[in-house]
Amino acid sequence: MIYLDNAATSWPKPPQVIQAMLDILKRGCANPGRSAHAMARQAEDVVLNTRETIARFFNISDPMRIAFMPNTTYALNTAIYGVLSEGSVVVATAMEHNSVLRPLKTLESKGYISVEIIKPEKLGRITIQSIKKALRPGVKLFCMTLSSNVTGAIMPVEEAGKICRANGILFLVDAAQGAGSIPVDVEKMNIDLLAFPGHKGLMGPQGTAGLYVRDGVDIRPLVQGGTGSFSDSLLQPGVFPDILESGTLNVPGIAGLGKGVSYINDTGIEIIQQKKKNMLKMLFDGLGKESNITLYSPPPEQNSGIFALSVNQMDSSEICYLLDRKFGICTRGGFHCAPLAHLSLGTAETGLVRISPGYFNNETETELTIKAILSIARGIH
Amino acid sequence: MIYLDNAATSWPKPPQVIQAMLDILKRGCANPGRSAHAMARQAEDVVLNTRETIARFFNISDPMRIAFMPNTTYALNTAIYGVLSEGSVVVATAMEHNSVLRPLKTLESKGYISVEIIKPEKLGRITIQSIKKALRPGVKLFCMTLSSNVTGAIMPVEEAGKICRANGILFLVDAAQGAGSIPVDVEKMNIDLLAFPGHKGLMGPQGTAGLYVRDGVDIRPLVQGGTGSFSDSLLQPGVFPDILESGTLNVPGIAGLGKGVSYINDTGIEIIQQKKKNMLKMLFDGLGKESNITLYSPPPEQNSGIFALSVNQMDSSEICYLLDRKFGICTRGGFHCAPLAHLSLGTAETGLVRISPGYFNNETETELTIKAILSIARGIH
Repeated sequence: MIYLDNAATSWPKPPQVIQAMLDILKRGCANPGRSAHAMARQAEDVVLNTRETIARFFNISDPMRIAFMPNTTYALNTAIYGVLSEGSVVVATAMEHNSVLRPLKTLESKGYISVEIIKPEKLGRITIQSIKKALRPGVKLFCMTLSSNVTGAIMPVEEAGKICRANGILFLVDAAQGAGSIPVDVEKMNIDLLAFPGHKGLMGPQGTAGLYVRDGVDIRPLVQGGTGSFSDSLLQPGVFPDILESGTLNVPGIAGLGKGVSYINDTGIEIIQQKKKNMLKMLFDGLGKESNITLYSPPPEQNSGIFALSVNQMDSSEICYLLDRKFGICTRGGFHCAPLAHLSLGTAETGLVRISPGYFNNETETELTIKAILSIARGIH
Repeated sequence: MIYLDNAATSWPKPPQVIQAMLDILKRGCANPGRSAHAMARQAEDVVLNTRETIARFFNISDPMRIAFMPNTTYALNTAIYGVLSEGSVVVATAMEHNSVLRPLKTLESKGYISVEIIKPEKLGRITIQSIKKALRPGVKLFCMTLSSNVTGAIMPVEEAGKICRANGILFLVDAAQGAGSIPVDVEKMNIDLLAFPGHKGLMGPQGTAGLYVRDGVDIRPLVQGGTGSFSDSLLQPGVFPDILESGTLNVPGIAGLGKGVSYINDTGIEIIQQKKKNMLKMLFDGLGKESNITLYSPPPEQNSGIFALSVNQMDSSEICYLLDRKFGICTRGGFHCAPLAHLSLGTAETGLVRISPGYFNNETETELTIKAILSIARGIH
């Protein structure tokens, strides 16, 4: 089997990730921050270590401003619901995932906020000009993905951050696609709110994610509950990370996530990036000239690691079905929870086949995939 | 080390739980419900199996009415925020955890709802008379814990369910303490909303929990995002469980949880219950007559598995510290995220020492614990 669905979740996980989960599950995975006994302190250490590892990875000066979340959707919702108020004006791009679009549209449908959408150029690129035009003083929040989960197009985050900061606009970056292969520096990029998954590019397990909130950004928690702190108070404490971390954390998952990020550090993010780019290049070279195939992804140097294509008028799910059943190749068809992206790309009917190689794929697998897609495109499967 | 903090999280986990997590992490933990390839379908099967196992366990006729949650706090917040509207009257007991009290008090502080609190009798018992008095037509929601996380007092859930149903009141049960040792039947108990943890009595890993919503109960989702379904819609789908399950699920955790519940089924919930009761009885017999010790827990037959005590005017955290450092016994002191419970019990100054044995503790450990507490109470440690 060839796994090329790393944009959904990365696989395989480094052995260190699984080992760390196994260790804490066996050795004793008590509830951190609740009790003070030895096993609870051990769990607390594991959580703190991962928090610090992630802080260094994204150049976050205070690890306590990172709250662990169950997935990126919760992180994005926490950010969006937490900073907006009645009458807020929000700008987002059409390349956003439903985890951004759906909370925004829900709030808009209640008349609570207004939302402006920046349309992309072809291949899902968002230009600096279009961002400049949309971002004016008075806008409360700008939401942008680090790279498109449909085409892989890397967004001009650093430039957008400058414009946001200059105009007093909060900048929320959805790093679901790209964290772990595109270097993210919250200071250099002027990011106020960073939502990131643990189980994709960071190589941790599912059930892990985080939200970074810059010091000075006021945020209301989406949920309130037990934090193991200020237990005598009937209202949520305001201190970080407790304000955003109610209830028991996914300690084994967080243990694994820490090892995932360490694995990236040990390997070198540039090495990971380069390996993915090499495979993308092979796909472009092997499939780019086939007349039945249309490509929707930017070239490797502008791409976080996604190769999106269509074959004539074939439904993308049909192609993915054939890839899976006839060739044992795992990809994702359909609409990737990004309706406006597909509308912009003109693929709202057929969807797209999304091939997302990961660090653990190799050239042989890429070659076999090229051959399989060519045979489907030529109708000789 | 003697682990007696099972009310915080159960430990150890059955080997089958850890093995199931290891298997799916290694074999291939793709993203369920997103892609249609073999590995994604395999992950989907694991999630469905756990959903069905839990449904049978709580006598839930439609497994799709169970949404997986990251922890019980999120489940309770989803229920509370999801069913209340402006002007709703809510009744809760003083024995509720902050995961119920804090969202209610947050909504009340905004003038959105009004909250009435039922006070307990001694040892944290809530009487049927006090419930009957508080629950009248016009009340929207009644929140009650299955058993107190401070004293272990089992609540009259079945009787409360009847009163709720007769008065058209939604009944939310927080099963954080008791699921896995007190049999729960949502039909027999007339439960409309059941929030339960995966990592306590159900013996699964941290990062797992669930919310059951009875068919016919309207609920708004707390978060909106990618569901892998109706991807072309900018609003959250209304279909269960998608409406409440946005973003990637904790698949390895859910795999483990399924095996945890199966372990309980294979062992027999009565056997688990009896073993915990036997250890409670030993604690009552061994410590009940000591003049320096005050007990705050009801006798074993009315208790889900908690033995709460104070020693003269000693701070509970100090006692837990001694138990940990001098005797290697893990317990929890302080206030257990239940401020009104401690106010009602008169322990808001010292807190309580909470001893919560689990199925994997034994008589020898219980005896050693009795000796350790006696030596602390007599000042001879």
